[in-house]
Amino acid sequence: VTESLKGAGAPQAAWIDGHDAASVSVIDRGLHYGDGLFETLACPAGRPRLLARHLERLRSGCERLSIECPAPRLLREEIAHLNRSRAPCVMKLMVTRGALTARAYRPSGREKATRILLRYPWPSYDPELARAGVCVRTASVRLGENRSLAGLKHLNRLEQVLAAASLGEFAEALMYSSSGALIGGTMSNVFVVAGGKLLTPQLDRCGVEGVMRATVLELAAGEGIDTEVRPLTAEDLAAASGMFLTNALIGLRPVRSLDERAFAVGDMIAHLQQRLEVHLSAAGEGA
Amino acid sequence: VTESLKGAGAPQAAWIDGHDAASVSVIDRGLHYGDGLFETLACPAGRPRLLARHLERLRSGCERLSIECPAPRLLREEIAHLNRSRAPCVMKLMVTRGALTARAYRPSGREKATRILLRYPWPSYDPELARAGVCVRTASVRLGENRSLAGLKHLNRLEQVLAAASLGEFAEALMYSSSGALIGGTMSNVFVVAGGKLLTPQLDRCGVEGVMRATVLELAAGEGIDTEVRPLTAEDLAAASGMFLTNALIGLRPVRSLDERAFAVGDMIAHLQQRLEVHLSAAGEGA
Repeated sequence: VTESLKGAGAPQAAWIDGHDAASVSVIDRGLHYGDGLFETLACPAGRPRLLARHLERLRSGCERLSIECPAPRLLREEIAHLNRSRAPCVMKLMVTRGALTARAYRPSGREKATRILLRYPWPSYDPELARAGVCVRTASVRLGENRSLAGLKHLNRLEQVLAAASLGEFAEALMYSSSGALIGGTMSNVFVVAGGKLLTPQLDRCGVEGVMRATVLELAAGEGIDTEVRPLTAEDLAAASGMFLTNALIGLRPVRSLDERAFAVGDMIAHLQQRLEVHLSAAGEGA
Repeated sequence: VTESLKGAGAPQAAWIDGHDAASVSVIDRGLHYGDGLFETLACPAGRPRLLARHLERLRSGCERLSIECPAPRLLREEIAHLNRSRAPCVMKLMVTRGALTARAYRPSGREKATRILLRYPWPSYDPELARAGVCVRTASVRLGENRSLAGLKHLNRLEQVLAAASLGEFAEALMYSSSGALIGGTMSNVFVVAGGKLLTPQLDRCGVEGVMRATVLELAAGEGIDTEVRPLTAEDLAAASGMFLTNALIGLRPVRSLDERAFAVGDMIAHLQQRLEVHLSAAGEGA
């Protein structure tokens, strides 16, 4: 079935509700309203990394949106089945509220969630990017603030699409909220090093609570690094001596420049990166 | 094909890119990111009302999002074809940026827009609602502010889904922005009458620029009514003597109560409603 999906954006395999399928119902609420959530699973050695964290975030997100979350066991089975060859890959898991039961925003409560699982080849990252860091710009598009949606990896991503559209040669664009708080990249969380502390934005008004962000925060605490999660502003950035990005695929990636400004990859960042690599290698085997 | 769509939320007919189809590609950016726009076309007498306005808003929205808009002539043909029996109906037209050309927010510019057209039966509205008005509540969910998306009828509608989820017995919920401005209902624009003036919120930070809102603003100006489009607050609401909602389907609907507070349907509202009915009857024939 998935042979009908072609081009660079096409997955190697697609499952919908447990069946090989290349298309979703035209009345799915994911399409109509972005009424759903997603997870991006890194499987660099064939098994999904941090899977328990991903499934827990999905469960928590479904609870906040009152979407009936598919059973974790079912999701684990389907994830394993879709990559039974154990090839390095990326999987995208989407869960929507399901098909419209009436032509209305208002959910009836009778919807049956749709689960969509796509497998893509593992991207070949340049190892130099992980060592020397990436060049990042500031996005002009800002993020709207909504406490009901803050932290969720939901399917309303037009703000990220617009910010990413002006990336140019940059690897990532940093986004501020409408009220002027630094939030993160279009597809990553951001950390800054300032005054010997590790800082990352509080995400109670917008932004996505990344699984790699949570992992790095735990590792940093375990290493005795002084860590603060709080609202960050452009002034905090101005005082920063270092910066890095995290997401499920790249792990931890240092930032070598933000707009015109250069950053060095200091000892704290290099140390955390090395510790994270060890942690993820172990997690990759154990999932 | 559309026989496979069942239930109360199922359309009578569905066309995708000019073909009878019940499903869209699992890699459509509309599903992944809400990367697209929509129009809701009222066809109470079998022909779409205000079609030129709808198509112009769609064109303008596509331009702002850099989506290649399907030709208006093609859309008109498909709309006419999908309701060739001329039955009273509602049509929903969605245009997404198209299938992913890479697993990324960033558009490649090589996407080919997807056009989706659904036909639903015309809803049987209680005429008493149009005369005596509807009961409305204030939503606790607020709207995020984003100037890049303000005014657009885009597919990122989770905020409306969450607000509509707590409608209870109310016909509509009024939403404020994160910075405290009154914006509109989950599926309607709002007007208030205060001090002999007609006021409606400025929508440069969030909200949808409704085609019925624009029509009512023009009619009011033609009737010599003093009209202001500006940021409105809870204080403006407190000073209001009347209120009504507009959208493409209901036209103009008076509000009889907001939360605990009752409103009368004053002369200005009754007059505008009558003028709008005449105008829409004419538009319904001429489209």
